[in-house]
Amino acid sequence: MMTPDAFEEALRAVGAERYHVHHPFHHLLHSGALSKGQVQAWALNRYCYQAHIPMKDASLLARLDTPALRREWRRRLVDHDGDGEHPGGVERWLALTDGLGLDREAVTSMRLILPATRFAVEAYVRFVRERPVLEAIASSLTEMFSTDIIRSRVSGMLANYDFVSEETLAYFKPRLTQAPADVAFALEHVKRHATTAALQDACLAALRFKCDLLWAQLDALHFAYVAPALPPPGAFRP
Amino acid sequence: MMTPDAFEEALRAVGAERYHVHHPFHHLLHSGALSKGQVQAWALNRYCYQAHIPMKDASLLARLDTPALRREWRRRLVDHDGDGEHPGGVERWLALTDGLGLDREAVTSMRLILPATRFAVEAYVRFVRERPVLEAIASSLTEMFSTDIIRSRVSGMLANYDFVSEETLAYFKPRLTQAPADVAFALEHVKRHATTAALQDACLAALRFKCDLLWAQLDALHFAYVAPALPPPGAFRP
Repeated sequence: MMTPDAFEEALRAVGAERYHVHHPFHHLLHSGALSKGQVQAWALNRYCYQAHIPMKDASLLARLDTPALRREWRRRLVDHDGDGEHPGGVERWLALTDGLGLDREAVTSMRLILPATRFAVEAYVRFVRERPVLEAIASSLTEMFSTDIIRSRVSGMLANYDFVSEETLAYFKPRLTQAPADVAFALEHVKRHATTAALQDACLAALRFKCDLLWAQLDALHFAYVAPALPPPGAFRP
Repeated sequence: MMTPDAFEEALRAVGAERYHVHHPFHHLLHSGALSKGQVQAWALNRYCYQAHIPMKDASLLARLDTPALRREWRRRLVDHDGDGEHPGGVERWLALTDGLGLDREAVTSMRLILPATRFAVEAYVRFVRERPVLEAIASSLTEMFSTDIIRSRVSGMLANYDFVSEETLAYFKPRLTQAPADVAFALEHVKRHATTAALQDACLAALRFKCDLLWAQLDALHFAYVAPALPPPGAFRP
């Protein structure tokens, strides 16, 4: 069994190897190499992931058995669903798709997304609903790696695309403070409750699984819209 | 199919016939006819119900697919779990069991509750987790009938028992405003979405089911602690 600090290092090493910041699609996205249609395809598909985040959080919340744990997970729902006055992450993502000129109904109905996006997102919701709570929490730890990617995404996209603005990228700014708060709790929880080598391994596997499903979404986007650029029948065409 | 107003009348008629305010145990409780030990048994068993309310709400929340619906159900979680500063309903119920001199661990471990309490509460959680969302929401409508019972309970218990006080009954006061807010949303939702005779019948059946499970908890308390006063092996003995 690893010490808690060595375990944290092992978790961070998963991100260093597998987090989707290293995917070629992200390099293209951030560097300004994509067309507006390709950025639309990314935002449209990513909406499916965003819209399911509060659903996976709610399904974890439904399995937590103390008020304190539920309060922590409820906070994440507030971040994504808003409070009825301040918009949450799902609504802020629509500012991006609106800003990119995508039809609101086409986005929220998800009828144009890639099947691979849906499969990956549904695998995540199912994992969080069905696996032990400790693993479900560990799978959220990709947020340990998200603040860097968000910073480079926002600055890169603002500098390189004339069709994005601070307003259309409104989704990302609150995430710079929300994600570290989420991580502070989840990392502490996982370090404290992974009390055997087997549990530590299960947490590492959960984090790898999560990295894989983020990565798979970019593979699908790359294949459909970059090279060979063959969107499947029924999917969005720029 | 009934008109929405006739449907609401039919829902209210379920409460008039079956709500547990009409159970003999409640008459004894409110009128001062119970011993302290019998009131302890009620508060101890009812804790199990209270502690599962946010769990059933969270499991409904996990099945709601719009931010607006989830925000409404999240509000109920706030009422029951608190916000980390203001106590929620679960914690306020412990003020009652504390005030009645019950050991905190004996209460929260639920190890002394009647098996019938657990069966009824688990049936409720399962119903809300598994039945259609419309029926799960309809089952919450017993709150239409709760403000009267709370008012008579608080005034009756304060007048009739020297071992209860305003502080120990802290659970109930916020419910007088929370329950009507819950009802306003849920009743409107059920009236709008029960668009066929079959759906209206299913909602009425859900509300009857909920009344039945509240009633069954009082049957068990009455049998174990009032007459013939035979608590089962392992259960709380005053």
